[in-house]
Amino acid sequence: MPQPQPAIDPQRIAARLAAVNHFGTVPGEPGVHRLSFSSADMAARRWLIDELRDLGLAAGMDAVGNVIGRWEAKPEAAARPAVLLGSHLDSVPRGGPLDGALGVIAALECVQALREAGIRPAAPIEVIATSEEEGRFGGMLGAQAMAGLVDAAWFDSAVDDAGQPLREALRGAGFDPADYPSARRDPAEVAAFLELHIEQGPVLDRAGAQVGIVEGISGVFNWAVSLRGEANHAGTTPMELRRDAFRGLADFAAAIPQLIAAAGTPASRLTVGQVELHPNFAHTVPGGCDFTLIGRDMDEAVMRALAAVCRERLRGAAEAHGLQLSLHEAGWLAPTPCDPEIIASFTRQAEALGLRTLRMPSGAGHDTQMMARLTRAGMIFVPSAGGISHAPEEHTDAADIEAGCKLLLHTLLQLAGPQTTG
Amino acid sequence: MPQPQPAIDPQRIAARLAAVNHFGTVPGEPGVHRLSFSSADMAARRWLIDELRDLGLAAGMDAVGNVIGRWEAKPEAAARPAVLLGSHLDSVPRGGPLDGALGVIAALECVQALREAGIRPAAPIEVIATSEEEGRFGGMLGAQAMAGLVDAAWFDSAVDDAGQPLREALRGAGFDPADYPSARRDPAEVAAFLELHIEQGPVLDRAGAQVGIVEGISGVFNWAVSLRGEANHAGTTPMELRRDAFRGLADFAAAIPQLIAAAGTPASRLTVGQVELHPNFAHTVPGGCDFTLIGRDMDEAVMRALAAVCRERLRGAAEAHGLQLSLHEAGWLAPTPCDPEIIASFTRQAEALGLRTLRMPSGAGHDTQMMARLTRAGMIFVPSAGGISHAPEEHTDAADIEAGCKLLLHTLLQLAGPQTTG
Repeated sequence: MPQPQPAIDPQRIAARLAAVNHFGTVPGEPGVHRLSFSSADMAARRWLIDELRDLGLAAGMDAVGNVIGRWEAKPEAAARPAVLLGSHLDSVPRGGPLDGALGVIAALECVQALREAGIRPAAPIEVIATSEEEGRFGGMLGAQAMAGLVDAAWFDSAVDDAGQPLREALRGAGFDPADYPSARRDPAEVAAFLELHIEQGPVLDRAGAQVGIVEGISGVFNWAVSLRGEANHAGTTPMELRRDAFRGLADFAAAIPQLIAAAGTPASRLTVGQVELHPNFAHTVPGGCDFTLIGRDMDEAVMRALAAVCRERLRGAAEAHGLQLSLHEAGWLAPTPCDPEIIASFTRQAEALGLRTLRMPSGAGHDTQMMARLTRAGMIFVPSAGGISHAPEEHTDAADIEAGCKLLLHTLLQLAGPQTTG
Repeated sequence: MPQPQPAIDPQRIAARLAAVNHFGTVPGEPGVHRLSFSSADMAARRWLIDELRDLGLAAGMDAVGNVIGRWEAKPEAAARPAVLLGSHLDSVPRGGPLDGALGVIAALECVQALREAGIRPAAPIEVIATSEEEGRFGGMLGAQAMAGLVDAAWFDSAVDDAGQPLREALRGAGFDPADYPSARRDPAEVAAFLELHIEQGPVLDRAGAQVGIVEGISGVFNWAVSLRGEANHAGTTPMELRRDAFRGLADFAAAIPQLIAAAGTPASRLTVGQVELHPNFAHTVPGGCDFTLIGRDMDEAVMRALAAVCRERLRGAAEAHGLQLSLHEAGWLAPTPCDPEIIASFTRQAEALGLRTLRMPSGAGHDTQMMARLTRAGMIFVPSAGGISHAPEEHTDAADIEAGCKLLLHTLLQLAGPQTTG
């Protein structure tokens, strides 16, 4: 008898996406509004629990709102560590239909495909929908709580943009904030975490690839830089007597390609995103210039080398223009590599499935970067049309979603096997 | 009998400066507050009229507040064109004690020195204190009115930053706005205009020169430039797929020294003083960048060449970063050269007086640029300590003021002569 083949059903995925995005749709307002712990977010979680239970999984919510649906295909599976897969259900305000939700629906689809094919994996499988991934309170509470990475001082003081405390939001959603430590998972009971997510960037779309195999989450350094010269009359101050703070920044920013060539990799990013001049008046030589510099790479040694050449170049530009340089490192986050064996497994399965893949870093943060501290973690990207995300126009072609789900499914089978059928 | 030598009295200048700056001094607030047509400004003008009359001049105010004190040393002088000298009496808010007022007091001092020495110039001499030079209403009303350069549409619609119409301010100061054309001077009745003013820049102070002989007022072009690319996630968008509007500006601004080397002169200035990024968020590749570019030179052909290389460089930067460039020329003001014969006369007199001088352009606007359209005009700068102006710390050493006044006096004598004594 031939081995039954589990099949991904694109129409079922589309239907479930439509269903989950019913929660957070506001008449007359484009996009999805499923802010973490909002009533829309909680309703989507309850809907998911019902879906999981309908499928025969033991489902519920932990102390911080993570939905967990567990499937033990055989009695003896209970003793083995579980393979977790999923993503988050919350969205940014006016977000898109796929960011987070797609990974949750994909996980559900994989389990349903296995069950319908009569496949019974040896290890338990858990469908996960994390809470508060989008950082309403400045972290990734759901995944951090599972991985035991919640800082107690942060938890007590975290507030959203409107000033609402995290504790209050949790209480409003029906949780007891004091319970958050119970959400922590025992690493011995978890075998792996897999996440499928939209890329949120243009790389796969431009390359015509169907699936991205994520090497890891880039590390980030975040600098607040300040240059101080002298504000002067732009008419009466000759060029050579100026201490023009903006020209210090311009010299630095113009050198970004050379800095990456000298110390970076194709995964490196250097971004000056925010600039404030003082006094910011057309007829005055800028006496002050404050700006942000965000640097990223997949390799912390490369990050250090990039930071060093940036510092050096900034010092040179400051000196050339007679400026005082001050540099505040507001953050340094090391890269989080994905598990090499899971990457290898993704790669083998993708080859077997004949998928056009690309290995790539993730420049955005994801649940995976927290879960990787709990267990072996792997991540798949599907293309974002036009690189658009966090917007109502967010879109991935159904064929690409299917390809990504197939890869997720087959790698899940590898990790949760050996399987038996019937 | 030896020719009597007119003598500049530094103490009298200091005393008159202190007296005029009594008007506009606000207890507890540093600096001079003599906004045009304010009660302090008008009181200073009335004080000046009294001083002029005490000295035996026929003094009064014209229809826009210009104070004019006329001295006809001999009956036959009346028929000759007059030599005008002076500057303005209004100040910016929280301005310094010298900007404008020094040139008026210096003119008064020159006339007093001549009278005390018993010198009777052949031509009439007029001490002028112009009104509204600092541009509260966006022009230089006093000098423009004398030179017949008031645009009627501008006059009717001009308002200050607080929204007060020029017409109303004039009325409040006791003038009938409809009378402004009567302030126009007949060019046939004016022989020259001389102005002494603080430099408002660092050049003389740095060079250790006592007096600047102004070649003219720089021409100015004023551009509002806009670059449009695409705002993207700074983590997920690789460097080579970005359309970073700020990097377009950085490439341009970093090239400013090369642009001036290619098309400019030592008098050229290129200033990016105002920059606004969109969305101006640290984690987003800037999709838009609006900035100002102000260009200056003493030669309009050089200005055109500078503008051309700037345009070319902006186009190149826009192309390199995939940006849309739009460029609005908000203003183009041709340079105003000073009269070559007056410059030559200043130079000869300075040599005879043994003064350390520097020939230089004026990058700031002055009454001279309007008066030069009415008559032959010449301008003298005295050093601004530290290049500071439009601030309470504005300062010029008494010895430099004396040197500037001497040069003004001797050139005045040249222009208003042949003189007789007694």
